[in-house]
Amino acid sequence: MADEVTAALLIIGNEILSGRTQDINLNYIALGLNQAGVRLKEARVVADDEAAIIAAVRALSAAYDYVFTTGGIGPTHDDITAECVAKAFGVPLRRDQRAVERLLKQIKAEDLNEARLRMANIPEGAELIDNPVSHAPGFRIGNVHVMAGVPRIMQAMFDGVKPTLKGGLPVVSASVVILAPEGLVATRLAAIQARAPDTEIGSYPFARQGRFGCTIVTRGTDAGRVATVAAEVAVMARELGAEVEEEGLQAP
Amino acid sequence: MADEVTAALLIIGNEILSGRTQDINLNYIALGLNQAGVRLKEARVVADDEAAIIAAVRALSAAYDYVFTTGGIGPTHDDITAECVAKAFGVPLRRDQRAVERLLKQIKAEDLNEARLRMANIPEGAELIDNPVSHAPGFRIGNVHVMAGVPRIMQAMFDGVKPTLKGGLPVVSASVVILAPEGLVATRLAAIQARAPDTEIGSYPFARQGRFGCTIVTRGTDAGRVATVAAEVAVMARELGAEVEEEGLQAP
Repeated sequence: MADEVTAALLIIGNEILSGRTQDINLNYIALGLNQAGVRLKEARVVADDEAAIIAAVRALSAAYDYVFTTGGIGPTHDDITAECVAKAFGVPLRRDQRAVERLLKQIKAEDLNEARLRMANIPEGAELIDNPVSHAPGFRIGNVHVMAGVPRIMQAMFDGVKPTLKGGLPVVSASVVILAPEGLVATRLAAIQARAPDTEIGSYPFARQGRFGCTIVTRGTDAGRVATVAAEVAVMARELGAEVEEEGLQAP
Repeated sequence: MADEVTAALLIIGNEILSGRTQDINLNYIALGLNQAGVRLKEARVVADDEAAIIAAVRALSAAYDYVFTTGGIGPTHDDITAECVAKAFGVPLRRDQRAVERLLKQIKAEDLNEARLRMANIPEGAELIDNPVSHAPGFRIGNVHVMAGVPRIMQAMFDGVKPTLKGGLPVVSASVVILAPEGLVATRLAAIQARAPDTEIGSYPFARQGRFGCTIVTRGTDAGRVATVAAEVAVMARELGAEVEEEGLQAP
C-alpha cells in the first residue's frame, strides 16, 4: 500500500513471559495506531534482560518508522529500560531535572529517595512523555517512544503521543460474516484477493453454537475499493449457498 | 540458572497487529511451559508476510531450544505458515497422506476441495501434531512446533505436545504483596536481589482503592531458596513500616 507508515511494539517484562500477567497493551496500541494512520507491523516481548532489550530496540528502530516500548521504567532493580535504550542509541543516561520536577508533583521531597530518582534518569537528548496518572514520565529518543507497562499509565502516555504521530493514509475495513466454514469459500476468496491487490483480505474462523463460520475482513486505504471488494465477497458466499451477515465500513 | 531450557513463541496473524483480535495464546503457552520446566524467553508477533515469517522462524529456531508458532494453518489464501516454515528449513512442502486422512475425519470426501487440502500440505520430514478439536493437524519440524491460532484448537494441540517436551528444573515462585509504593522498598529490594543471584526478583506495581502497592515475586528452581528470599523481602517491607500479605510457594 502506498504511503504506509509503520511501527513496532516492544513489550518488556518477565511477567508477560512467565504468564503472570496477560498483556493488553498491544491491542490498545494497535487500535490507536490505526486511528493515526500508522500500521503496526511487528511486536516483540522480551525479558528484563539488557542484551535482549538493546538488540530489540536497535533492530526495530532501524526497521520501522516508529517504535513503542512498554514496561521497565519504574524505580526497582528490574526496571532497566531507560539505561538499555540509552545504550542502544549510544548516548549517556543522565539525571533529568525536568523529570525530577515531575516526580515532585507526586512524591514529597523527603520521600524522593535514590531508587525513586532512577525514574528521572533519561537518555541525553530525549524528550519527555507526559504521565498524567502518576507523573513519572516516559520519553522519546529518535523514533523510539518509551512508556510505562501499567495499562492505565501506558494508555494515558500513548494518548498524549498519538496526536504527534505523522501517519499515512488511514485504513478502513469492511467485514462479511459467513455462516459456513472457511473451506467452502477459500478458493474463490483467493481469486478475489488476487484481483484486488490494493486491499488485504483476512479470513478469521469462529464457532457459534457448534457451527463453523468465518469473518472475512477487507482492509485498505481506499474506502470505495474496500466496500466494493467486501460486497464481492458477500455475493460470492451467497452464490455458494452460505448465509451472510454484512457489516459496513469501519475505521480501521 | 542452571539447566535452563528455553523457548520462543511466534504469533502469526494480521488480526493481532490490527487490534481486531486480543491474543490469549501467549499467556496459555507461558503457563504451560512453566509447568514443563521450559522458560519462555521471547515472543514475536508478525503479519501474514512470507519474508517476516521466514526470518522470525530462522532467528528463533537458532536462538532457543523450542519454538512454538500459532496461526496461519487454515485453508485460506492468508494461511501461509506451512509454506514459510518449509522454506525456513529448506525442505519441500508436500501433500501429506496422513494429514489427508485426518481431514477426512472432519470433512466429507466430496467436500475436500483444493483449498481444504492445503491444510494437508506439510513440510517434508515433519511429524504431525494432533488436533482433537477439528482434526486438521499441526506439525513439528526440528525444534519448531506449528499450531493453530484459534485458542481452543491451539490449547488442545499444545496440551498434546507438552508431555513430549524435555524441560529443565521446574521453576517455583513466592509472592509478597506490599501495601506501599514500590519506591519505598526499591533500594533494599535491589540489595536483596544482589545477594540472591540464584533467584529472580520482580516488582509489579498496582493500585488498589486509590492506594499504590506492589507484588514482589521471587522465582527460582530451589524452593528452599525462593522461600527464604521471599521471607527476607517480607521482613524488609515490615521494617519499613509497610503492611504485607505473604503468599506461599507456587508453581511456577
